[in-house]
Amino acid sequence: MTRRYTIRFLALSALLSLPLLAQSPVKTVQERLGYPATARLLVIHADDLGMNHSVDRASFEALEKGWITSASILVPCPWFPEVARWAKDHPNADLGIHQALNSEWTDVRWGPISGAGRVPSLVDENGYLPLDTPAVAQNAKMPEVETELRAQIDRAQKAGIRISHLDTHMGALMTTPDLFAVYRKMGEAFHVPILFERTGTHSPQGIPVPDDMLVERVVSMEPGVAAKDWLDWYKKELSALPPGVYQLIVHLAYDDDEMRGSTWNHPDWGAAWRQHDLDTMKSPEFQNRSGQLEGSRKGLAGELR
Amino acid sequence: MTRRYTIRFLALSALLSLPLLAQSPVKTVQERLGYPATARLLVIHADDLGMNHSVDRASFEALEKGWITSASILVPCPWFPEVARWAKDHPNADLGIHQALNSEWTDVRWGPISGAGRVPSLVDENGYLPLDTPAVAQNAKMPEVETELRAQIDRAQKAGIRISHLDTHMGALMTTPDLFAVYRKMGEAFHVPILFERTGTHSPQGIPVPDDMLVERVVSMEPGVAAKDWLDWYKKELSALPPGVYQLIVHLAYDDDEMRGSTWNHPDWGAAWRQHDLDTMKSPEFQNRSGQLEGSRKGLAGELR
Repeated sequence: MTRRYTIRFLALSALLSLPLLAQSPVKTVQERLGYPATARLLVIHADDLGMNHSVDRASFEALEKGWITSASILVPCPWFPEVARWAKDHPNADLGIHQALNSEWTDVRWGPISGAGRVPSLVDENGYLPLDTPAVAQNAKMPEVETELRAQIDRAQKAGIRISHLDTHMGALMTTPDLFAVYRKMGEAFHVPILFERTGTHSPQGIPVPDDMLVERVVSMEPGVAAKDWLDWYKKELSALPPGVYQLIVHLAYDDDEMRGSTWNHPDWGAAWRQHDLDTMKSPEFQNRSGQLEGSRKGLAGELR
Repeated sequence: MTRRYTIRFLALSALLSLPLLAQSPVKTVQERLGYPATARLLVIHADDLGMNHSVDRASFEALEKGWITSASILVPCPWFPEVARWAKDHPNADLGIHQALNSEWTDVRWGPISGAGRVPSLVDENGYLPLDTPAVAQNAKMPEVETELRAQIDRAQKAGIRISHLDTHMGALMTTPDLFAVYRKMGEAFHVPILFERTGTHSPQGIPVPDDMLVERVVSMEPGVAAKDWLDWYKKELSALPPGVYQLIVHLAYDDDEMRGSTWNHPDWGAAWRQHDLDTMKSPEFQNRSGQLEGSRKGLAGELR
């Protein structure tokens, strides 16, 4: 049987220090990480840290207990300072920046940290980052995108957060070749890996997928799966993976007043959804399954196993 | 016995349409409002609408049930859109702008809506409005203060909110004559009354109190009063008021996870404090007391009684 391992995104960043040309094109990412070619490596990753206290509480607990291995931060969000404080107390946490050009909920919103005056193409008529990604693809000017993405990384680094990777909130930076180019530029400028996959929502649109891809595919719960079937869905999706490096993206929070208020008109990725994702990650069934993924119990403690 | 009445701040704005010079200097505010000179008028007012969902839930309920008559909004805060939606459903609500130059909690923070690039003198080293008022008094440049205060009012008006008054978050605009001058300018520019009192935290410092003051004194719970004594404290403070117009400022929220997270290291005006203020306002004892203040039961429904 093919062995599975959980890893932290941080592990992938080690590959960046190898000169790209010196890397044999026939070597897989898992081999470059020191695993057999048949190994299946999984990053278990929570999005949206900083969005609100409910997300933070749930994700911090999941990181601390090793239910997940990695998370990424929405820097423009109001609760970013709470994340920065937690990161100071957990210097080995595997944290990336969830580069954000959208503010998708209707009752609680955020703007670009660069300010609407400096990046006018990134805000809607209310002064916030737009609700959905087509508005970004249509309106965003690339120099302003770069200004804002840099500002988000700068703020996190200034707050003392050690950044292991970048990813893209709602996949906005995948939607045009120009946006993807700025995303790549950020990865190179800050010398951290960026998340993209061969096909799917985290695959760049309109261009061939670059060959320095690190994560083969993103697995993430989609609308339409009944809550009672989530565990089976996860099991099935993960079991089917051939050798390679994968990222399981989860969305954790409590189904509490704050989260229900944040997402009241959007059940997908809403309060009950996130509570259910949290319950699934912490469930003995998933933990046992995850136990087959070597290293999962090490959680934050170990780099790789 | 001197009669007492509760009023909305909106009532005071009616006075602005009378030419100041035509108003007899011997007429009191209560007389100018059509009450006897012996009347005591009370605005019962909640601060910080928009700060988070817990504050919004509690304050909306208090406004809807008439436990309070008025509230003011922190426009730069993440939950401002929730307030705008509620205001649309409650077009007669008595809402002002809680003009904000501070972001006082450490784990959840907000910046100027004008953007740090446009108003650099208003932000701290982390890009947020500063934690406390001395930083405002020391660093804020008046043209930038005006830019930000206008932006807050503009955003609220653009969102369809009918603004009855302005007040000042943490009293920051009272701390220097220059800041107070910008505050007054905003009141004149938008033709709405601004809150200040003869002496106390809402009294302008370093200048004589202007004679167009509308509220004689602000009554507000201060640290050091034991929770069990709050009702008596309120009763005593309100009973002692001579004829005139007063504002009782309360801070409402639920003692829930979100509020505890927001205020975890600051018990004064924290989660338990705000829950207790909410419980006091809704208590039969306060309501009965408040019943002596004519019009209180009318709440939002009536302009004045």
